[in-house]
Amino acid sequence: MNYLFGEFFGTVVLLIFGAGVVANVLLKGSKAEGSGWLVITAGWAFAVIMGIASSVATGGQGDLNPAVTLAKTLIGVYTFSEAVAIMGVQVAGAIVGSAVVWLAFLPHWELTEDKGAKLGIFCTAPAVRNTPANLLCEIIATIMLIVPVFALTSKAVAVPAGMVPYMVGILIWGIGLSLGGPTGYAINPARDLGPRIAHAILPIAGKGGSDWGYAWIPVVGPFIGGVCAYYIALAAGILK
Amino acid sequence: MNYLFGEFFGTVVLLIFGAGVVANVLLKGSKAEGSGWLVITAGWAFAVIMGIASSVATGGQGDLNPAVTLAKTLIGVYTFSEAVAIMGVQVAGAIVGSAVVWLAFLPHWELTEDKGAKLGIFCTAPAVRNTPANLLCEIIATIMLIVPVFALTSKAVAVPAGMVPYMVGILIWGIGLSLGGPTGYAINPARDLGPRIAHAILPIAGKGGSDWGYAWIPVVGPFIGGVCAYYIALAAGILK
Amino acid sequence: MNYLFGEFFGTVVLLIFGAGVVANVLLKGSKAEGSGWLVITAGWAFAVIMGIASSVATGGQGDLNPAVTLAKTLIGVYTFSEAVAIMGVQVAGAIVGSAVVWLAFLPHWELTEDKGAKLGIFCTAPAVRNTPANLLCEIIATIMLIVPVFALTSKAVAVPAGMVPYMVGILIWGIGLSLGGPTGYAINPARDLGPRIAHAILPIAGKGGSDWGYAWIPVVGPFIGGVCAYYIALAAGILK
Amino acid sequence: MNYLFGEFFGTVVLLIFGAGVVANVLLKGSKAEGSGWLVITAGWAFAVIMGIASSVATGGQGDLNPAVTLAKTLIGVYTFSEAVAIMGVQVAGAIVGSAVVWLAFLPHWELTEDKGAKLGIFCTAPAVRNTPANLLCEIIATIMLIVPVFALTSKAVAVPAGMVPYMVGILIWGIGLSLGGPTGYAINPARDLGPRIAHAILPIAGKGGSDWGYAWIPVVGPFIGGVCAYYIALAAGILK
Repeated sequence: MNYLFGEFFGTVVLLIFGAGVVANVLLKGSKAEGSGWLVITAGWAFAVIMGIASSVATGGQGDLNPAVTLAKTLIGVYTFSEAVAIMGVQVAGAIVGSAVVWLAFLPHWELTEDKGAKLGIFCTAPAVRNTPANLLCEIIATIMLIVPVFALTSKAVAVPAGMVPYMVGILIWGIGLSLGGPTGYAINPARDLGPRIAHAILPIAGKGGSDWGYAWIPVVGPFIGGVCAYYIALAAGILK
Repeated sequence: MNYLFGEFFGTVVLLIFGAGVVANVLLKGSKAEGSGWLVITAGWAFAVIMGIASSVATGGQGDLNPAVTLAKTLIGVYTFSEAVAIMGVQVAGAIVGSAVVWLAFLPHWELTEDKGAKLGIFCTAPAVRNTPANLLCEIIATIMLIVPVFALTSKAVAVPAGMVPYMVGILIWGIGLSLGGPTGYAINPARDLGPRIAHAILPIAGKGGSDWGYAWIPVVGPFIGGVCAYYIALAAGILK
Repeated sequence: MNYLFGEFFGTVVLLIFGAGVVANVLLKGSKAEGSGWLVITAGWAFAVIMGIASSVATGGQGDLNPAVTLAKTLIGVYTFSEAVAIMGVQVAGAIVGSAVVWLAFLPHWELTEDKGAKLGIFCTAPAVRNTPANLLCEIIATIMLIVPVFALTSKAVAVPAGMVPYMVGILIWGIGLSLGGPTGYAINPARDLGPRIAHAILPIAGKGGSDWGYAWIPVVGPFIGGVCAYYIALAAGILK
Repeated sequence: MNYLFGEFFGTVVLLIFGAGVVANVLLKGSKAEGSGWLVITAGWAFAVIMGIASSVATGGQGDLNPAVTLAKTLIGVYTFSEAVAIMGVQVAGAIVGSAVVWLAFLPHWELTEDKGAKLGIFCTAPAVRNTPANLLCEIIATIMLIVPVFALTSKAVAVPAGMVPYMVGILIWGIGLSLGGPTGYAINPARDLGPRIAHAILPIAGKGGSDWGYAWIPVVGPFIGGVCAYYIALAAGILK
């Protein structure tokens, strides 16, 4: 059961830092207001590093992402029912983590008029709304997450174990810098769905709708990406 | 007694780099003037790395932060009287370090009219003045410092010993990027109180008041955060 | 044959991240639009890290660059025919990788009017068009790639094997920051030629010409740089 | 004699990247023009990493800095005559490295009208011209270079040998971010004097004077800082 707690805890940490950096950049009056894309992508990178470390230190695997868990299930790391339980706690952790961010920035929500900005702290929205293109972008970005993660943790590359979270963080930074522009790089169903639920539930000052019409894309896209990544990594010989 | 000197010395280094980066960005005429939040947060991150290394190299523990020392006292690393002594030298080190920054930027203080900016080099001020919200933000940010520090130094995560200061620096960078906006992330009673004392004492050209009304929040908040972090880390199984 | 696949695969990954970051910054409507040189150079740095890791994990050498392969051929790592095959798959990988970027940003091409920006996502163009100066800049920048790579992988420097891709990434970041301004630092014939071919072939909305008149410089310059780097490294005693 | 070549070679590399990043940011038409303080400080950080690695790989000590060499001479690492020879080749390397930058950016010098910017690529100038304050700032910044370098290379801190150049680079980044604003952080007599000589000698299009009146400060300041750093490190117990 420890592995479920660790996975939950790591995802809480992931979202506190991850939703936090977007709040820091978008909310009115914040000292980081308007500090831009490099700040957002660096913040998410460090969120992943600290999330993985916090997960591993508490008995988790540091997946923090149902798409990663799915790919590892295809490899045989988890049974199907284990995977479902892990994904459940990842979503729960993401709800809790983003709720903590709401608390940390409490006076700033009512100062901020832009409802889209407030939603954007919790979940992603596309730059251009185009279902097949948005889905494709999420699939590609998720493949570019999971295949390099398998490479970074391979024996051939031999990253020192304690530096793996850091290298995965650098990968996340790279995905944001290189592929994050069209859809905001959810690349993680829990990271998007959990906070969207939090946004719908929490009494956020002056909030708008939770854009449920788009919500399936950052869930389905990453899952498809996870399956593709498994087959690509298998075909490419990264898995053993 | 060496551990007290090391703790003092590391905090001097922490504040030279930490107060330094804020001076560099805020003081008129500085080559880094206006270079923004990413510079400030990176500067504080590197300040922590060099502070920890300098502390450890001179016999200290590299806490540099009474909230960290408090959490480690709850674990049983220090006796109560050792902890008080450590906290005392941390404050003293922070006074000295920020005074060095005053010297390094000597001609720039009178060029700078903004009294708030000059105070902001020494200690934190909230973006929105709101006692419970400011306190809560400092508590959350300090928890997000100490729990991941325990994770990063756990056997499970296995960061190579010589890379721990670097990883803690990345954590500090992440806290600034993600949670620093509402209160300026003191997350360290010595880092805020010591330089505030320095600001009050030093003959800084055209300085204003030292905002003592706010001074208790970045002291009490991090201490509460340290206690919370201890119980969270204990409950989460990070501490053995 | 594995080493050819690994080299191909790593170059695909290199270009997805590398062309990706330029697309992210230059294409209209992208969330990273206008985020500047630091983003572009960081993105290319992380592209190289992930490209090398992906190459090594799939049986490649992580060269990803015909100029590097040429220098290693002069050392005796490859036969001439092996080198030609490696260079061929590097170009093929770069075509595929940049085509994936076209897909990931699909709705953004027609939103972007600037034909030069669209070409700039695929291949380099000089800031000032001046054949000898552009060639010289590419030669110098390539020498500053390959000589430090040999240094970073030397026994004397002793970078841990699993951190070598990271350190090479930092080197690439440095080349971009320090020498990238005059020609856009191709420093890699495959990275420039492959995507230029992709630009010519792909049905990119509102594309202009592929600037074939300049195309030989980022091919010939890096090859000359590779030869120079070999002789410099040899004379400087880096190679054993 | 190898150690002299290695020291020379490393300083060439240091200046190609270091003067390069300033050229990239300040010269008209460069793709990095106006990209700011974070770019300049990151570029110098990576310059130091690559300079140290290149020096060590070619038989040098990676000092690259007469102030560091002086402090190590006080420790007893070098004899006085060895130290003088090392400092000589450091200055020579800095001349050569900055001359290479002049070549790499050849068409951009005549496009740039600002003579001060052109000089600023080669050597430092103070933000506010004030002899005692400028000298003091260089002394403080150099102490904050050399004391942490001794900490980072101490057995207590235990940075993996192959990561030491990286950590020193992060230190340099931190010095630039935190203390670089008043004088441009020469903190290295060779880094300032060598390129100033190059500026005086090279036929740079539209160059102005080489500001010899200020030239002694970034030489004397760092030397005083090196002596102070030695005594501080000794007193603090970092040396042994």
